[in-house]
Amino acid sequence: MICTEEMRREILSRLSGYRLKHTLGCEKAARKLAKKFGEDEEKCAFAMLLHDITKEFSKEQQLNLCEKYGIIPKGVEQTEWKMLHGKTAAAIAQHEYGAPQDVVDAIAYHTTGRANMTKIEKIAYLADYIEENRDFEGVKTARKLAYRDMDKALRYCFDSSLRELIHRGKKIHSDTVEARNSLLSD
Amino acid sequence: MICTEEMRREILSRLSGYRLKHTLGCEKAARKLAKKFGEDEEKCAFAMLLHDITKEFSKEQQLNLCEKYGIIPKGVEQTEWKMLHGKTAAAIAQHEYGAPQDVVDAIAYHTTGRANMTKIEKIAYLADYIEENRDFEGVKTARKLAYRDMDKALRYCFDSSLRELIHRGKKIHSDTVEARNSLLSD
Repeated sequence: MICTEEMRREILSRLSGYRLKHTLGCEKAARKLAKKFGEDEEKCAFAMLLHDITKEFSKEQQLNLCEKYGIIPKGVEQTEWKMLHGKTAAAIAQHEYGAPQDVVDAIAYHTTGRANMTKIEKIAYLADYIEENRDFEGVKTARKLAYRDMDKALRYCFDSSLRELIHRGKKIHSDTVEARNSLLSD
Repeated sequence: MICTEEMRREILSRLSGYRLKHTLGCEKAARKLAKKFGEDEEKCAFAMLLHDITKEFSKEQQLNLCEKYGIIPKGVEQTEWKMLHGKTAAAIAQHEYGAPQDVVDAIAYHTTGRANMTKIEKIAYLADYIEENRDFEGVKTARKLAYRDMDKALRYCFDSSLRELIHRGKKIHSDTVEARNSLLSD
């Protein structure tokens, strides 16, 4: 099932403020990337509309969704519960909106990445990183790279994220390391 | 079984040049750390004598040892075969020298670290990093930290190693990330 205009309006009605603005920015960037790299634009837009649908949820709400949908927090997610929003949003996309598996996966891994990402997964990760409302060090470089070479852009984003996590003394999700490893030649 | 003087001589006879010098430096540093932090000095020395015993082996020799001892290369080790030397050295320590399990593990994880390291594992990792022949950026800081607070020293070493791997575009072993994560508070 694909996202109808009615569904889109309903999803957007669940968001407000910065989250709504960011989601619309992501949708726009994902459509642009999909066009550029020959991916299904509607699927990419669908993923972005829902990617942060649980982002503002409390720890209790995240854990309730995990229990409801059989999500088992993995590694860092066991202590950094905010990282669960990708997985819980993916479950909502699947169970409440009937999203197809590739859209569900793109939502599930939009924050961490994972080894051997599909094109939709790459677009979702990058759209989230570079959408027009983002403003942080390096975002312009990431944006430029994304529309030129998605793998190079992903490497840049993973390297930047890892450096930032090291600098801030924060835990690193093993999926991000495996995503980066899978982009490097043997 | 512990390492006898005869075994020590036999092990050292298998090493030469820089590898011998480095191994003796590691043995010395490990004894010093063991004394400082109340760990079994002989076990720590035993681990360091053998930690690099397969370091100069070829890819073929590493893979033969993996087959012989049932070692299954994990993640990055599948393509970065040089990372196997910890695991193959550990197998030799176990099967050829009858080393106890805690010494075997200290050898196996001396390059990558792993989540929730034991005291012997920490000493082996740090001794290898800070021994007196080492001379690279940050080694003095690591050395100073190691004799003061092993966990702080490990964090410093993991952070430095990760930054270096990112800078050089090299793959990261998931055990190192998990080792670092396990040192950070929730």
